Amino acid sequence: MDFRIESDSIGDKKVPKEVYYGVQTLRGADNFKITGLRLNEEFIKSVVQIKKAAAITNLEIGELEVNIGKAIIKACDEVIAGKFNEDFIIDPIQGGAGTSINMNANEVIANRAIEILGYEKGNYRIVHPNDHVNMGQSTNDVIPTAGKITALRLVIKNLDKLKELSNAFSEKAEQFKDVIKMGRTQLQDAVPITLGQEFSAYSAVVKRDIARIQKAQDELKVVNIGGTAVGTGINADSRYVDRIVPRLSFVSGLNLKKADDLIDGTQNLDSFASLSATIKTCALNLSKIANDLRLMSSGPRTGLGEINLPAKQNGSSIMPGKVNPVIPEVINQIAFNIAGNDVAISMAVEAGQLELNAFEPVIFYNIFESIQTLTNGVDTFIKNCILDITANEEICSEYVNNSVGIVTALCPYIGYAESAKIAKMAIKSGESIKKVVLREGVLKEKELNSIINPLKMTKPGIVGK
Amino acid sequence: MDFRIESDSIGDKKVPKEVYYGVQTLRGADNFKITGLRLNEEFIKSVVQIKKAAAITNLEIGELEVNIGKAIIKACDEVIAGKFNEDFIIDPIQGGAGTSINMNANEVIANRAIEILGYEKGNYRIVHPNDHVNMGQSTNDVIPTAGKITALRLVIKNLDKLKELSNAFSEKAEQFKDVIKMGRTQLQDAVPITLGQEFSAYSAVVKRDIARIQKAQDELKVVNIGGTAVGTGINADSRYVDRIVPRLSFVSGLNLKKADDLIDGTQNLDSFASLSATIKTCALNLSKIANDLRLMSSGPRTGLGEINLPAKQNGSSIMPGKVNPVIPEVINQIAFNIAGNDVAISMAVEAGQLELNAFEPVIFYNIFESIQTLTNGVDTFIKNCILDITANEEICSEYVNNSVGIVTALCPYIGYAESAKIAKMAIKSGESIKKVVLREGVLKEKELNSIINPLKMTKPGIVGK
Amino acid sequence: MDFRIESDSIGDKKVPKEVYYGVQTLRGADNFKITGLRLNEEFIKSVVQIKKAAAITNLEIGELEVNIGKAIIKACDEVIAGKFNEDFIIDPIQGGAGTSINMNANEVIANRAIEILGYEKGNYRIVHPNDHVNMGQSTNDVIPTAGKITALRLVIKNLDKLKELSNAFSEKAEQFKDVIKMGRTQLQDAVPITLGQEFSAYSAVVKRDIARIQKAQDELKVVNIGGTAVGTGINADSRYVDRIVPRLSFVSGLNLKKADDLIDGTQNLDSFASLSATIKTCALNLSKIANDLRLMSSGPRTGLGEINLPAKQNGSSIMPGKVNPVIPEVINQIAFNIAGNDVAISMAVEAGQLELNAFEPVIFYNIFESIQTLTNGVDTFIKNCILDITANEEICSEYVNNSVGIVTALCPYIGYAESAKIAKMAIKSGESIKKVVLREGVLKEKELNSIINPLKMTKPGIVGK
Amino acid sequence: MDFRIESDSIGDKKVPKEVYYGVQTLRGADNFKITGLRLNEEFIKSVVQIKKAAAITNLEIGELEVNIGKAIIKACDEVIAGKFNEDFIIDPIQGGAGTSINMNANEVIANRAIEILGYEKGNYRIVHPNDHVNMGQSTNDVIPTAGKITALRLVIKNLDKLKELSNAFSEKAEQFKDVIKMGRTQLQDAVPITLGQEFSAYSAVVKRDIARIQKAQDELKVVNIGGTAVGTGINADSRYVDRIVPRLSFVSGLNLKKADDLIDGTQNLDSFASLSATIKTCALNLSKIANDLRLMSSGPRTGLGEINLPAKQNGSSIMPGKVNPVIPEVINQIAFNIAGNDVAISMAVEAGQLELNAFEPVIFYNIFESIQTLTNGVDTFIKNCILDITANEEICSEYVNNSVGIVTALCPYIGYAESAKIAKMAIKSGESIKKVVLREGVLKEKELNSIINPLKMTKPGIVGK
Repeated sequence: MDFRIESDSIGDKKVPKEVYYGVQTLRGADNFKITGLRLNEEFIKSVVQIKKAAAITNLEIGELEVNIGKAIIKACDEVIAGKFNEDFIIDPIQGGAGTSINMNANEVIANRAIEILGYEKGNYRIVHPNDHVNMGQSTNDVIPTAGKITALRLVIKNLDKLKELSNAFSEKAEQFKDVIKMGRTQLQDAVPITLGQEFSAYSAVVKRDIARIQKAQDELKVVNIGGTAVGTGINADSRYVDRIVPRLSFVSGLNLKKADDLIDGTQNLDSFASLSATIKTCALNLSKIANDLRLMSSGPRTGLGEINLPAKQNGSSIMPGKVNPVIPEVINQIAFNIAGNDVAISMAVEAGQLELNAFEPVIFYNIFESIQTLTNGVDTFIKNCILDITANEEICSEYVNNSVGIVTALCPYIGYAESAKIAKMAIKSGESIKKVVLREGVLKEKELNSIINPLKMTKPGIVGK
Repeated sequence: MDFRIESDSIGDKKVPKEVYYGVQTLRGADNFKITGLRLNEEFIKSVVQIKKAAAITNLEIGELEVNIGKAIIKACDEVIAGKFNEDFIIDPIQGGAGTSINMNANEVIANRAIEILGYEKGNYRIVHPNDHVNMGQSTNDVIPTAGKITALRLVIKNLDKLKELSNAFSEKAEQFKDVIKMGRTQLQDAVPITLGQEFSAYSAVVKRDIARIQKAQDELKVVNIGGTAVGTGINADSRYVDRIVPRLSFVSGLNLKKADDLIDGTQNLDSFASLSATIKTCALNLSKIANDLRLMSSGPRTGLGEINLPAKQNGSSIMPGKVNPVIPEVINQIAFNIAGNDVAISMAVEAGQLELNAFEPVIFYNIFESIQTLTNGVDTFIKNCILDITANEEICSEYVNNSVGIVTALCPYIGYAESAKIAKMAIKSGESIKKVVLREGVLKEKELNSIINPLKMTKPGIVGK
Repeated sequence: MDFRIESDSIGDKKVPKEVYYGVQTLRGADNFKITGLRLNEEFIKSVVQIKKAAAITNLEIGELEVNIGKAIIKACDEVIAGKFNEDFIIDPIQGGAGTSINMNANEVIANRAIEILGYEKGNYRIVHPNDHVNMGQSTNDVIPTAGKITALRLVIKNLDKLKELSNAFSEKAEQFKDVIKMGRTQLQDAVPITLGQEFSAYSAVVKRDIARIQKAQDELKVVNIGGTAVGTGINADSRYVDRIVPRLSFVSGLNLKKADDLIDGTQNLDSFASLSATIKTCALNLSKIANDLRLMSSGPRTGLGEINLPAKQNGSSIMPGKVNPVIPEVINQIAFNIAGNDVAISMAVEAGQLELNAFEPVIFYNIFESIQTLTNGVDTFIKNCILDITANEEICSEYVNNSVGIVTALCPYIGYAESAKIAKMAIKSGESIKKVVLREGVLKEKELNSIINPLKMTKPGIVGK
Repeated sequence: MDFRIESDSIGDKKVPKEVYYGVQTLRGADNFKITGLRLNEEFIKSVVQIKKAAAITNLEIGELEVNIGKAIIKACDEVIAGKFNEDFIIDPIQGGAGTSINMNANEVIANRAIEILGYEKGNYRIVHPNDHVNMGQSTNDVIPTAGKITALRLVIKNLDKLKELSNAFSEKAEQFKDVIKMGRTQLQDAVPITLGQEFSAYSAVVKRDIARIQKAQDELKVVNIGGTAVGTGINADSRYVDRIVPRLSFVSGLNLKKADDLIDGTQNLDSFASLSATIKTCALNLSKIANDLRLMSSGPRTGLGEINLPAKQNGSSIMPGKVNPVIPEVINQIAFNIAGNDVAISMAVEAGQLELNAFEPVIFYNIFESIQTLTNGVDTFIKNCILDITANEEICSEYVNNSVGIVTALCPYIGYAESAKIAKMAIKSGESIKKVVLREGVLKEKELNSIINPLKMTKPGIVGK
């Protein structure tokens, strides 16, 4: 392999001749071989959009020479288009507050810009990674801002999928609105409900999650770019500080806002903890729904059998014909993983010190995974599960008619204590509530029939009145 | 001890004659000896306010006889006033979705109402815990609603304290606005900042926490009372369902709102996960601030020594004269505990099944502790720490003048690479940046002096321009 | 109230005349009003046993005057007997690495010893909390050691209960060894198993937990007493350092061992994280078992109904006759709480700095609760649930005979693909596997009968061979 | 692209002609596009080693035809050698207890074996994925066993690295054994210690972690292979059940042991929670050490400056000459991530139901990452940080001489109260302890000099006696 020699404060280092990254990137890659993974591509794009916005701004205010500025902007456009993803070689879990990521971007852009200007990669006198590409910036404002932009983009997709999910539940709610079944509390027979009411509740809880994520989204729009090293804005021209956020909004297509307190904005990453919590809460809700679907579809012969999930794959390598609720199961697992990620993020957020929280890399690693796996999970949940659920109306109906829980409706007529006696007799003998009531002469048949009306029991009011 | 005999579906049981709770409470107390603690008193109050609002409503719609209703209301007022706290004997961690708590309240109120009406405790034909006190209600709408009311009340106090804290930080920011010191990132010398800017950032992050908690507060106002057993409102007169939330708003003094979907409101406790997350995020932020204060006040001779925390107690049983940062340390610990509570709450929220989440008790146990310990921690943080912090201006100033980080301001003039060389020389030789620059002839003294201006470095802009 | 004036480095302070604690305790109590709770009484006992062992040792080596030493020992015995628990007023969550707890003990013992010697409380020239009671000690060796002793004691009780639980499961395993039922994987019908095998597995997993907790217990026996302030043993007479651990073993009745590296022993609290993990893992296992029991006992009419849990209390305030699985539910909640505690402990363990981890108080608060609630939970689990579980053999049997999963036994004869077809037909038509096999002519009836033998299916081997 | 048609219970599906996986794999890949990642390659190897051991066993007992068995074994060897990693396309987070992984292996092996036997891929009459490759097995015994084998292998590497780390710390301890410095507790000056003692403590705590991980390792050796679907061993020839574990030990080179209770072994994954806890505790300890190193190396001018970490990369894109403690920082982040993973694993372990815990995929995803990132982190920690740490002896020494904490040594001579007064005076006036003592005439100079002996203060005993 051919090499070029680059040098930094640490010393000289051979860099493969054909690559666009430079010496600092290579040191970062050497120091951090942790997960073996690459950076999220949306994150690379976000970092480079900041570089582009900075170059545009520095050109405008005359701090950057026109030909250098233009070359940087062109180089940024190419990176944003994904042409240099292979040159981003830094492990997502890394020390150093993202300096390696920032320098990876600075070096790739500088080298590409150098080429554009007709020189050889590594000739940083033409375009310098720090002096030109990073002009007016610091890792400490670039990386938190890029993290927020990335999260925003991932959240937008996530919200679309959640809305689709909420609608899918609503659709099923409408479809199942006449399927009367027994409600269960604590896995014990409670009182009648419709399957539609259950799916409607699923839709409602997802809507609440959407509202929460949207609020967290608002916080993400507040960025600290312009604060440079510690939020004081040292080395950033004041005209640049005024313009960089609007330029970045333009480049990114996102409606960003400069933080009122850039020092706070540099040292605190609580907005990611807050975002993570909304994603986690949503995942917990979906896991609960997944559990319900697994319970209701349990069977085929020894479970509840109230609904059928679509068969998506063989369920067993040994038990023929077995079909398992694999899609809800993946939702559960995504939720567990996200709950774990939330703890990692919490610990990292707490660990900031003085002017900086240097633990952004692990926060981003976790939050990006949380959002994306939730989005992906919801996608398969909708397509491969929810939309094709069917109800076993007959089974649902049998449960209701056979249930003890319907005795509840007698309370307003015969009191709690008397009703409890009836229930106990029925459970013991295996008879229906109706049969016991009549045998015991507690109520007349006609009155009883007007009370034991499952459909009416699914609505507010004292049945029979 | 004298006893009375009470009975329920399980059988007969001796209840001490003088107590107001009854057989069901006693079974709950026997079954759950877990933490050895008592219920939060604010929670008892909230449950009983619901009982009172229900009695008022049932009186209004004519479902409850006037004398019974009035006796119940009078009994509720006495319990709300705290007269019967000793009769609430249920462990906060308990099985059964809070049925034991609800029955504890129903029995205490019933027995007190029976007494008020001139009968002996235990004579439930006069006032029945289920038929009268619990009329129109279920544990499944009473307990989640009471949990939300309690959390709301605790949060209101919490927000007051957090506002006080934010103000205290602002006050110190003003006081320290001229104390120039070195900013540090990753515990390494960065660039100058003022101590005031640091405290201002602390104030800013707390304000963001306040805003988040307020949003979570809005969610808590949405209650499921009226939904009864599974949210369908079975056995609740429809006039009652319409009126109970306004009546409860009146009794509690809180502006409550009926859940749009009572079935969702009964089975999902995600609003507590969401609230817990805001409390946790706030605690993480405060823990970061506590860490900063501990770092900055480290010493007296072998630490940073930039600020002094007020001495609140001897720091050591063996080392005389030692004073430790005990107040920030308690903030750290509160934060760790709250982060743990958040995980417990997450797991419980996920574990709901079908029509109910039966794990409210452990959620409430954790969330109430989180809010209250945060409030209490902030109280001592303000009074015993923040307000009496003083600055060691001289030390702060020396650090700045002696620092290497101020080389940053040279970058716009001599470039990153050249500046790095200067910095490296200075670190090696132990000289000041100024000295090295002049010796190396990089800049003229006059120009240099206009650039190396620590105060200007604390504000946006290229120093010297 | 009458007062005495005491003073410390901070200044003078009025202390109620009748109390045994002194000025330093009072400052600690004022500074930390966090949980409103008191210290664990076992922990008080452990701290004071250390004080006693230290006094014995210091007497032996002649560092403590005989009359002072004897008075201290007598005072310790009284405190150990619980006579002064009311004088321990420090909040369990506190700043300062336990100095307030240590000084609370030192002051109570000193004042009681002063009284024993015929003087008035507060006259520390007679017996000094630091110079005499705390002789040779530091908070930094006393408190971690006391935490370990306490944890050891709580773990011993815990292990007893877990063994009882494992035995209870074994007993039920024997009782249910002939109850054949359908095994379920992923809540879908799998292959036959016996209820006894299930309970036997429960016993086995608890045994593994016991073994793990025992290993963690071994670590707890290694204590850092003798290391004083930072583990170097400064101010501890070397004869004292040699003798204190054996003396403490004697006083505490526990077989303790001095840490090989006392500096490590002072600054690292990982043994508590390790212990917490074993308690947590056990709790997770029990929660899984609790979930199984809730599933298997679901019903009475609309659930699986394979087993009956004993009815321990009314299950609902609105639904008469409802009996809920309240005991397993409390196990779930204990597990969630313990999992949360584990996170709090993890964060505190990570937060140690240099020569000390000052966050012992919150670690102890959580670990003691974890162990005790688990012990208490297991106690009620055994007594109020496991021992009285009964099986619904008929239902179990019906499930097996009616199941599709038994088709698995055909695989070795007709292959997976053919068996899958049979299963699919049976599910579709609602017929039994046997009926479909015979109708399709896949196997002869005699052969089929030898294969479809549920009892044999519960044991290793190819059925029918 | 050319396709072949394969079919399963769900129906027909086009499979690319050249791939070795089949229809079931493809369905799994379609259903689960969650993380976008591939399976851990060690895990693939482990699964296939089980397939090989099973084939060997089935050949031995005569259940598998010789040519089929040999072809399978040959195919397995090729997969184990990594030749077919590209054909393992299942996402690590997936529903279905690993059935997709198991079938991916079964299909790849079957197709390769078919080729070896001279037929075309997809011709499952020749070698069937279920009937032949999966003979005697179920996903439910293959996957947990493969998870344990994989974890074991990763742990072995991990332990090697940890031993290397412990040795590196010991080496530095020896090197720094004469560097006397001030110990600090709660970031406040405490008493003297040597830098060597600190590094020795780091070595000690890592040794304890090693011992813990080794114990967890023992548990991993207990596998449930042979239990098939639910642990009863249905469809596994009893000769196979007897032989499979020894065969697998041979193939894997690991000393495995059959679980005493295969039913327990199938449904409980607590051994992974237990392993995760040991990895987490180790990570927490390393994070504490990393924090210490970051503190001690803070500076260069405004920090403690006691040690120097090797400079590994530029620390800032804006601040020239800045070198940050990036290696310790990555250790912190690895620890946070692992603590999060532990929570995910805990939740998954708790979520098992009846005969199976179907959440193995998310457990493996997290535990494998935890172990590997810890191993990788320790590798860079040793090579790029620990080994090249140097001490600033002069600074360390100055701190000691200038410190107030050395007053502690006076306590045995003049008492705690008097010593505290001296300390207070010294802190106020800025003088040294010695100076104040002499001025106040508390001790004679000669006596004082024998007491104020920092080196002696680092060892047990009363200095000066």
